[in-house]
Amino acid sequence: MTDCPFCNPDNILLENDLAFAKYDQYPVSPGHVLVMPKRHTASWFDLTAEEQTAMFVLANQAKKLLDERYAPAGYNLGINCGEAAGQTIMHVHLHIIPRYFGDVPNPRGGIRAVIAAKQDYTHWV
Amino acid sequence: MTDCPFCNPDNILLENDLAFAKYDQYPVSPGHVLVMPKRHTASWFDLTAEEQTAMFVLANQAKKLLDERYAPAGYNLGINCGEAAGQTIMHVHLHIIPRYFGDVPNPRGGIRAVIAAKQDYTHWV
Repeated sequence: MTDCPFCNPDNILLENDLAFAKYDQYPVSPGHVLVMPKRHTASWFDLTAEEQTAMFVLANQAKKLLDERYAPAGYNLGINCGEAAGQTIMHVHLHIIPRYFGDVPNPRGGIRAVIAAKQDYTHWV
Repeated sequence: MTDCPFCNPDNILLENDLAFAKYDQYPVSPGHVLVMPKRHTASWFDLTAEEQTAMFVLANQAKKLLDERYAPAGYNLGINCGEAAGQTIMHVHLHIIPRYFGDVPNPRGGIRAVIAAKQDYTHWV
């Protein structure tokens, strides 16, 4: 796909046989990285087991690199599959989002925030 | 850990040698599933490669089951690592969140919503 920004990424941070890692162009926090397979595929669930593994091998490497460069307090890992799930570039990408104490008023629930009203289940009880 | 709700989960949906899958007790959407390793470990990054793989094998199986039962339009996959990232139960768990058109006013960005103000990067330009 010649018009896909993730098929021939620039500023590659990490790479293995089947996947790339690079910084997100629109970071939600300092050190926000994306991991993507080299093969143009829209859905995580259409990747081979080898491609899924290659992406998590890079994610583990990226975490070590980000620990050294940014020393965050935590991480969110996430993949959006499909337009209804918020995916905007139809080439699989795994978000690695470093988190810092105080970066939001109440972080509880983390990626549950995709449905904002349901993020913090501890407020239900 | 006898007081950990994910060490001996009830209502198991799927299982393999190293991981379980079950429905989230506080679902953010219909069909919200959690996948967890059997071994009590707080961080995704402290799991072995075999445990990480076992979890994604179950996630792939859960997706097929959820497609049949709920027919969602998409999925968010995500892991919160650490309190700063919103993790509340310190036993690794992967969220599989089925998504439906219209379930939020603007889904764009998906798991970028962990930093709410940065969710939809297309509003920056």
